[in-house]
Amino acid sequence: MQTGKFIVIEGLEGAGKTTAHQYVVELLKAQGITDIITTREPGGTPLAEKLRQLIKHENEENITDKAELLMLYAARVQLVENVIKPALEKGTWVVGDRHDWSSQAYQGGGRGMDKALMQTLRTAVLGDFKPDFVLYLDIDPTLGLARARGRGELDRIENQAMDFFTRTRHAYLDLVQHEPNAVLIHAGEPLDSVKAQIKQAIENFVKNTQ
Amino acid sequence: MQTGKFIVIEGLEGAGKTTAHQYVVELLKAQGITDIITTREPGGTPLAEKLRQLIKHENEENITDKAELLMLYAARVQLVENVIKPALEKGTWVVGDRHDWSSQAYQGGGRGMDKALMQTLRTAVLGDFKPDFVLYLDIDPTLGLARARGRGELDRIENQAMDFFTRTRHAYLDLVQHEPNAVLIHAGEPLDSVKAQIKQAIENFVKNTQ
Repeated sequence: MQTGKFIVIEGLEGAGKTTAHQYVVELLKAQGITDIITTREPGGTPLAEKLRQLIKHENEENITDKAELLMLYAARVQLVENVIKPALEKGTWVVGDRHDWSSQAYQGGGRGMDKALMQTLRTAVLGDFKPDFVLYLDIDPTLGLARARGRGELDRIENQAMDFFTRTRHAYLDLVQHEPNAVLIHAGEPLDSVKAQIKQAIENFVKNTQ
Repeated sequence: MQTGKFIVIEGLEGAGKTTAHQYVVELLKAQGITDIITTREPGGTPLAEKLRQLIKHENEENITDKAELLMLYAARVQLVENVIKPALEKGTWVVGDRHDWSSQAYQGGGRGMDKALMQTLRTAVLGDFKPDFVLYLDIDPTLGLARARGRGELDRIENQAMDFFTRTRHAYLDLVQHEPNAVLIHAGEPLDSVKAQIKQAIENFVKNTQ
């Protein structure tokens, strides 16, 4: 039996990840892939969802950058070991809303955390596990944040200075340029164009896996 | 102004850490050191206490060894950065119930986690921060666990096989043998003897810091 594939949607707030996530599932089903689960990070297991709450909404004390990073990786290793790997092994495809690139972009790029520390932690926790395909939804943070703000209250991480998101975007752009199994989607374009880009990327990926 | 000192009580369940912790505070006060705070790990800050609850009582899913370790270090870095370092800097002494040796003993020794991973994580998170003095309360795990069980329900970590605690004790013994700023207390002896050992150790430590 073939193992499943792990496809991840990445991008800034307001880039359209939720819409893209649902659309990727539809596209896979149209390609005859029906055994699919979806995940989101941080979260996706009982413990990881509790960590997500702490990461996003803790307000009794200042969360240090290191504690934030460690909690993100604790949530991630629970999701990878208890959900994603078992699914892939039995042939289920996994479509994820965020994964490790988010830490590399937000904590590494946005917060400017030490790259050697991040590399060490990633290797120690995840080994060589990584997505089979990444769709990076690229958007100007000014536009993305305006969209996200239109949806209501911002959480602790969304409520950062614009510089933070500009650095995060640059880290994403660096990642997508160096990863062959990733595609940049111009997510600031009209919805029809964004969907057309996603459709082509997913259809190409599926074709290449068969 | 002199900085404070960080004294840590370490040892297995039932070794008498709580009693020793209170006694050390009394002894310091008798030595004229009155500006003291106490800490416990994991815990000691609002976020760290929430992580403590997850670590000790999460029961909806299996916590991977790596997630446990990452959560312990997340709690530790919050305590060190937000409580311990600021206290020491203004001259306050800190008496801790557990600190980093607990991870080295329980996760490194007990769970057998990779020593290189643990060393890397410790250095990345804590840098060269460490206690000024460690009192290690050594006890045969059979005796310690019997005492702990007498106090009521065991938590997730206390509810391990005896082998786990034997490995944990060996890791503690290895640590205390290689750390000059640490003393082994024979905690299986009668209370008067244990207190006499602690009194001598603390009085010596205070004398050497002045």
